[in-house]
This record gives sequence, C-alpha cells and structure tokens, in this order.
Amino acid sequence: MEKNCVFCKIIAGEIPSAKVYEDSKVLAFLDIAPFNFGHTLVIPKAHYHCFTEIPAEDLTAMMTVAQKLAVALMRATGAPAYNLLMNNGQVAGQEVPHAHLHIIPRHVDDTVAFSAPQKHYEGDALPELAAKIREKLAKQTENQ
Amino acid sequence: MEKNCVFCKIIAGEIPSAKVYEDSKVLAFLDIAPFNFGHTLVIPKAHYHCFTEIPAEDLTAMMTVAQKLAVALMRATGAPAYNLLMNNGQVAGQEVPHAHLHIIPRHVDDTVAFSAPQKHYEGDALPELAAKIREKLAKQTENQ
Repeated sequence: MEKNCVFCKIIAGEIPSAKVYEDSKVLAFLDIAPFNFGHTLVIPKAHYHCFTEIPAEDLTAMMTVAQKLAVALMRATGAPAYNLLMNNGQVAGQEVPHAHLHIIPRHVDDTVAFSAPQKHYEGDALPELAAKIREKLAKQTENQ
Repeated sequence: MEKNCVFCKIIAGEIPSAKVYEDSKVLAFLDIAPFNFGHTLVIPKAHYHCFTEIPAEDLTAMMTVAQKLAVALMRATGAPAYNLLMNNGQVAGQEVPHAHLHIIPRHVDDTVAFSAPQKHYEGDALPELAAKIREKLAKQTENQ
C-alpha cells in the first residue's frame, strides 16, 4: 500500500467505493464521475504506477476480469459498445498514479469521443520511425 | 484470415505496413493516420472482432508486446507518456472490425484529449447500478 494513494485507500476500505468485482489481485469499481453510467475502473491491488510496471500475473488477472466485466457492463447498461482506456503518465491524463484501466460503456450519439486530429508522415518519416522503434525494442531485449 | 478484413490483409502481407514488431501471435505496426507520431496498433494475428473475443493466450501475448512497445515508443519519440485505447464496437469508434490496441505517445500540450463531460449519479443510482453489474457478472459465472 502506497501512502496517500487514493486507490490504495479504496482497496484498504478507508475510502468507500461502489465495488463491482474483487479478488485477491484485482478490484473493480464504478467511477464516481463517469463519462457514461457504468464507467468502471479495474485496478491491480498491488500499487504500480502505470501499465509497463504491472507484472505479467497481475496484468493477466486484470485483463481476464476486464473481459468478463465488459460483457456484464453492456448487459447492465444496455450499451452496444465500449472503450478500454488506460492513461499512463500525467501528460496522458493519468490523474491517480496507481495503474487503472477504464471500461467505458458507449451509446449511439453519446457525449464521448476518443478521437483527435490526425497527423501525417512526410517523405520517409514513416519507415524511418518504424526502424527507430524496432531498434529501441531490440536494445530492450538485449538488456534483459 | 477473414475475407475483406484490412488487418488480416496486412498480416498476410497483401497490404504493406510499417511493422514495428511481429511474432507468431501478434503484429504491431504504425498507424498511418496517427494522433501523434509513433501511434502504434497492436493486433492478434488471428481474427477476433473485439476484446472480449480474444482468447487468454493471445491477449497475454498482445499485452506483453504492448508493455515492451510502450517503452520503445517513448524512447523513439521522446514522449513522456502514452495512452492505451481499444475501441470495441462501431458505436465506440472501432473502424476496423479486427480487435486492435492503440498505443498513443503523448506530449505536453499536444492535440490529443481523451476526456468527456462527466455524468453524475443521483440518489441511489450508483449502488443500484453496481448491484446490477455484480448480478450480471454472477450470471455469467453460473453459465460457464
């Protein structure tokens, strides 16, 4: 448990939450300021800042829960679709520094829109960036 | 391989792509209309419509790749943060009906914003919806 972490306090029961699922590794509860009703947060019980820090076992547990919950949320809310969103880092909109996966039920013509202006690769920028990413990925693997 | 699926054609090499990672289960390539440069799509090689259809083994493979790629993307682009986004269903903005995870590098004051007006639960709506979701989840487990 991380001191001053709101989600760790929710896990510990020090802050109340509308729980929808709980096991030894994962907790899921309704976001109290939802984009749509049924907007749920799935979190690992252990404190990890962001996606890349989550060990494989906890991540698998989270994803298994998220798959079941996505179905349950659609049935409970009547939503025909949903988004999964995970903001990693403050610049990406992460408000609580305890990794959390948003499941957001979606309805026709609702007020949610996860899109943005599209950028365009000029000249060789696309293959050059792909090569650079592959190189960084290879370096990670070498260092393991 | 699903006939007329753009991503299945990319996997088969019938449509070119800027690949950043490939193994027997997973392919990752740069989105050609990115929200930010380095915006990457991670897809299972087998054709599944959406998140809930992906078998555990393929989903674990995708997430393992996504964790490594998120680090590589930040190193290659200098982005300090990133979003994971998965749109499931047309109403949620899914444009290609082959499950895909977006990894979107984020920069300070960029043109991306994954937020929406917040709704408010009135009266007992919050605990009542939580109870309904738990009930739907329990029914799924019973039916397994």
